[in-house]
Amino acid sequence: MRKTILLVCICFLCTLVKAQDVTSPDKNFVLKFTLQSQGVPAYSLTYKGKEVIKPSHLGLELKNSTSLLDSFEVAEAKTATFDETWSPVWGEVKQIRNNYNELAVRLHQTSTDRFIVIRFRLFNDGLGFRYEFPQQKKLDYFVIKEEKTQFALAGDHKTFWIPGDFDTEEYSYVTSNLSEVRGKMKEAVTPNCSQTTFSPTGVQTPLMMKSKDGLYINIHEAALINYAALNLNLDDKNMVLESVLTPDAVGDKGYLQAPCLSPWRTVVVSDKAGDILESKLILNLNDPATVKDADSWVKPIKYIGVWWEMITGKSTWSYTNIENVQLGITDYSKLPPNGTHGATTAHVKEYIDFAAKHGFGGVLVEGWNEGWEDWFGKTKDYVFDFVTPYPDFDVQELHRYAASKGVKIIMHHETSGSIRNYERHMDTAYKFMVANGYNAVKSGYVGNMIPRGEHHYGQWLVNHYLYAIDKAAKYKIMVDAHESVHMTGLSRTYPNLLAQESARGTEYESFGGNNPDHTTILPFTRLMGGPMDYTPGIFQTRINAINPNNNSWVRSTLTRQLALYVTMYSPFQMAADLPENYNKFLDAFQFIKDVAVDWDDSKVLEAEPGDYITYARKAKGTNNWFIGSTCDENGRTSKIDFKYLDEGKKYIATVYSDAKDAHYEKNPQAYTIRKGIVTNKSDLSLLCAPGGGYAISVIEVTDANALKGLKPLK
Amino acid sequence: MRKTILLVCICFLCTLVKAQDVTSPDKNFVLKFTLQSQGVPAYSLTYKGKEVIKPSHLGLELKNSTSLLDSFEVAEAKTATFDETWSPVWGEVKQIRNNYNELAVRLHQTSTDRFIVIRFRLFNDGLGFRYEFPQQKKLDYFVIKEEKTQFALAGDHKTFWIPGDFDTEEYSYVTSNLSEVRGKMKEAVTPNCSQTTFSPTGVQTPLMMKSKDGLYINIHEAALINYAALNLNLDDKNMVLESVLTPDAVGDKGYLQAPCLSPWRTVVVSDKAGDILESKLILNLNDPATVKDADSWVKPIKYIGVWWEMITGKSTWSYTNIENVQLGITDYSKLPPNGTHGATTAHVKEYIDFAAKHGFGGVLVEGWNEGWEDWFGKTKDYVFDFVTPYPDFDVQELHRYAASKGVKIIMHHETSGSIRNYERHMDTAYKFMVANGYNAVKSGYVGNMIPRGEHHYGQWLVNHYLYAIDKAAKYKIMVDAHESVHMTGLSRTYPNLLAQESARGTEYESFGGNNPDHTTILPFTRLMGGPMDYTPGIFQTRINAINPNNNSWVRSTLTRQLALYVTMYSPFQMAADLPENYNKFLDAFQFIKDVAVDWDDSKVLEAEPGDYITYARKAKGTNNWFIGSTCDENGRTSKIDFKYLDEGKKYIATVYSDAKDAHYEKNPQAYTIRKGIVTNKSDLSLLCAPGGGYAISVIEVTDANALKGLKPLK
Repeated sequence: MRKTILLVCICFLCTLVKAQDVTSPDKNFVLKFTLQSQGVPAYSLTYKGKEVIKPSHLGLELKNSTSLLDSFEVAEAKTATFDETWSPVWGEVKQIRNNYNELAVRLHQTSTDRFIVIRFRLFNDGLGFRYEFPQQKKLDYFVIKEEKTQFALAGDHKTFWIPGDFDTEEYSYVTSNLSEVRGKMKEAVTPNCSQTTFSPTGVQTPLMMKSKDGLYINIHEAALINYAALNLNLDDKNMVLESVLTPDAVGDKGYLQAPCLSPWRTVVVSDKAGDILESKLILNLNDPATVKDADSWVKPIKYIGVWWEMITGKSTWSYTNIENVQLGITDYSKLPPNGTHGATTAHVKEYIDFAAKHGFGGVLVEGWNEGWEDWFGKTKDYVFDFVTPYPDFDVQELHRYAASKGVKIIMHHETSGSIRNYERHMDTAYKFMVANGYNAVKSGYVGNMIPRGEHHYGQWLVNHYLYAIDKAAKYKIMVDAHESVHMTGLSRTYPNLLAQESARGTEYESFGGNNPDHTTILPFTRLMGGPMDYTPGIFQTRINAINPNNNSWVRSTLTRQLALYVTMYSPFQMAADLPENYNKFLDAFQFIKDVAVDWDDSKVLEAEPGDYITYARKAKGTNNWFIGSTCDENGRTSKIDFKYLDEGKKYIATVYSDAKDAHYEKNPQAYTIRKGIVTNKSDLSLLCAPGGGYAISVIEVTDANALKGLKPLK
Repeated sequence: MRKTILLVCICFLCTLVKAQDVTSPDKNFVLKFTLQSQGVPAYSLTYKGKEVIKPSHLGLELKNSTSLLDSFEVAEAKTATFDETWSPVWGEVKQIRNNYNELAVRLHQTSTDRFIVIRFRLFNDGLGFRYEFPQQKKLDYFVIKEEKTQFALAGDHKTFWIPGDFDTEEYSYVTSNLSEVRGKMKEAVTPNCSQTTFSPTGVQTPLMMKSKDGLYINIHEAALINYAALNLNLDDKNMVLESVLTPDAVGDKGYLQAPCLSPWRTVVVSDKAGDILESKLILNLNDPATVKDADSWVKPIKYIGVWWEMITGKSTWSYTNIENVQLGITDYSKLPPNGTHGATTAHVKEYIDFAAKHGFGGVLVEGWNEGWEDWFGKTKDYVFDFVTPYPDFDVQELHRYAASKGVKIIMHHETSGSIRNYERHMDTAYKFMVANGYNAVKSGYVGNMIPRGEHHYGQWLVNHYLYAIDKAAKYKIMVDAHESVHMTGLSRTYPNLLAQESARGTEYESFGGNNPDHTTILPFTRLMGGPMDYTPGIFQTRINAINPNNNSWVRSTLTRQLALYVTMYSPFQMAADLPENYNKFLDAFQFIKDVAVDWDDSKVLEAEPGDYITYARKAKGTNNWFIGSTCDENGRTSKIDFKYLDEGKKYIATVYSDAKDAHYEKNPQAYTIRKGIVTNKSDLSLLCAPGGGYAISVIEVTDANALKGLKPLK
């Protein structure tokens, strides 16, 4: 009797909750969860009545176990609301509101008596959902064969994409309709020293799209912890994207132990492009900071570095010219210096002097340590020890010298993909940093991974990257990781993770060039998960002026390089060019000196992915603003206002913009600088050259004398 | 002109050295090196005029590079002689003579302009040879696809073999002709939780053989460092064994950087079986100890342990009964103890008392730390942290108690094959040991390896095992590694590596039983590379007397268990049974208390692989001897003399032997103990039951009163 009643009750609940809706706080988004026939869980999403995600399946395929794909019934559906404001340690804004309506559906798989929960959070800027695997008898250890999360799109959207890959994000973005991905894939897969594509229609996330009816849609993931990273495979007949996780060496996609969680899958949507850029959804889905007292030791950094000269080929990372090195056995003191080594004590002191003179807090130095003669392409295990300097790099003396100038040297840990080696040395390496005055490290993961067979974006490596960041925090060390997995908002939980590269950065301007519209796309894609160490600021765009053997050139005007300090948000910003090039353009360089790296507010003034982005940001703890605008190869006129300035105040605006005849290829260094007064009633119309842009510092007037000789800016 | 002259000279040398001979110091062995057609290097070996190895190819197949198999010419052939005597820190003998004639052939591969050296060392007990890859322009980094070292045998030898496998050695030995390996393979591959066979005629090393004309031949390797471990594949048409290295996750067999060396491939030969056992060839091929002051802190250990009760199923390693554990999150203090946990403070104190009472230096404790509820078979990454005890195991109190009794607790680090996890915790784990009075650790590698796809015997793991041993030495910690790669004499270089399991040990007596002749084979196979932690001393052979649910039984008489302390050499010896079982046979237990674990001399009195072994050993720093004899399922009469005793001295011999009606199955605990006087003129005839043996302590008489009431032993 009791059993029958129980059954009836469950059915009733099932009937009740077979379909469940939840809306965003402002009601623009509606998420529908349903169980389709065969008990397959599905969801769909609309925005202001328009389809964004058509009904799409959810679930996971398991290895050696019944998959979590079907035969579900709804055991429970709970809704909740959350509304809190929090302050990041550093960021684009001072305060972030975390406000969502949540639906948590507890599903029971009848055939196996197992439970999963799918939790949906609807924000005013989009959707996040994840799988949860509660502690339970019938599910403890399981292996993912593949996650089967679908995103059924409502049209053949214009898309900004890079090829799906388990090892690199360093591709140029392709702008095309989804239906054209297949045809453009071959050309899109440019060579990289570590790359593993998986499908002729595979694409990476963050994936940016624009529908024909003007909706901007961005798909990514948040809080990637102990799970394989997400890629997407496009079914280009039906315009359905499906999750593809990164495999391990034996083809498995994840080892999980309940209770555990998947990362959040995110869909950020708006009819205004700027809303995508301003979205804090991914950060909001991450846990609050676990690092204690981060405020006291995590500080955004503006830096220069002994780096670009090696990237351009003018200098070398290596100290000598030998075929191979055996750390601890090779006696560098007996080998002839090659005369091209960049990281020498004397040269680094020059950089320290320049940094001190111009107010930069840090000097990155690459190639300071033994091992660079054969670090690349050898799949070498014991490749670096992270603590032994070359004979011409005096660690202690440079520590002393930098400290005397109020500058910090930034450590460099290139791992060469040799992960066990890095972990074996990590504590010693971090202790070495602390002992010698370093508090920030740029790490690198160039080349194929060791353990061999593992991929940059697999669960094993995702675990490692966070291990390195978490351990760094224990030593109060800040991290900028290159060639690491895409960012997913983890900087909220680990504020010592300042930035990553994890995309095609400025170095590629020296390796053949980036597209002129590259920086009009990156904020819509790469930056969705966190800041990028893009290392802008190249004033000498013709590389052969630095190294006659390198004919690559930077697809950018000089003032667009200034703009990037505003449009490419990062708390870890490099002025990447050589000091001698800055010395030739000190008036333009002034903007880089002035621009902040931490903000109380940020506003997108105008934006269209692939075309242009203009940002205004308020420097932390001040009433000053900085504006930056970047555009594509077409050039344009940018019209902006200043409505966000304080009522009744005057500001001095210094505008750095392309000269009338500037052009990213033909005339990149033609720029004008003009100063004038602006108020919140001002507006400006500014010329942007092809591949160009502008930068403006807007400084609050506190002393009326400063206004002398200045006129309102037009 | 100069080039021509050079060419002529090289050719001349080639003609001169196309074939090269070298003999052992006593001239019994003759090694011939030749270059066969196509420039294929080959060698052959005779002993006292008999073929041991027929002409056999040498070389390596490389990946993505011309292989090092042919197209060689001899660039140089150098001979040398070496004769030195050295003293091991611990061992079977006080001094070891290292005497060989060496031939080093430098080969030039004309098509690639690369060089390798093959170095042959001929000792009076056999041959060792290895490949050397000198520093050179044309060869630096290379990947081994397969090593192609052949051992062409001269007949269808009687062989003692276990299936070739990349993950386990825990098989029972099969005795058969080589031609029968294929037919017996299926049955030989008994289940193991981590196993990877590779061929229907694959066999492991050390491989023991006996030819029809009475030659004993043993093939193995020495000094396995940073290289994949050796297995052999038998071509059973031609009776040729060929090397098969252990692959990594992607199928590669080794990553090398010149200058480097392969391990030595060893062929130990004699017409006396005892010579194989007494051979020190493998130790002699290893480098001298690098560990400083090893004498001061490396001390052989006789121990007991909280272990057998878990192996038999009487107790559990685990503290509570839950499905899964999350270290650091699972709160054991809130979970109900299962009441079967072995490693409790009170119980360990009982063991400490027993150890102190009976003169044992150590107490091994397994299951002392959090994580045992779900450690096995889950491929769990963060499985143990090696420092957090269960709530009922008081580390500090037990440290204090053990110290007060002059006993040390032996640490246990089960890694569960989760290698990165062990390495991440290793320094902390070793520091914890030092802080809490532990100076020896038993480590374990049960289960499939993580990183997944790697094998127990691959280069990655070989590197790890040595990393753990080397790091342990820095903390003055001794190591006994279980489930690790076969031993290859590394204890000479790393004397803190006391022993390993790395074969089917006594625990298998509780998992279904070992063959009664198992211990008549192991010294000819497993022990060739180093000591085994065989953990003998089981007096209660019926496991159901300990755990009614376990019907396994030990295939051995009680006195054969005593014999194993002499025949199974190890500086790390366990009296494995429960104290209550020793208490029932204290008279027999006396032998275990008396027997030494370190020796000044060792002699094989008689031996035939698979049938019987009798050893006499002289306890270090004394004039006392201990004798042990083990036999197979047939039983036998053992006749021995005492010629090695000092002239003119009297000794008291206590003989522990099988009773007339003893039998390993029907009557294992029937034994006799008798005492008498022996001199170097004595001889004895002793009955060994089926699966039996005897043990004798031979104590120098220093006080004539001790002789009262004793008669000459007959």
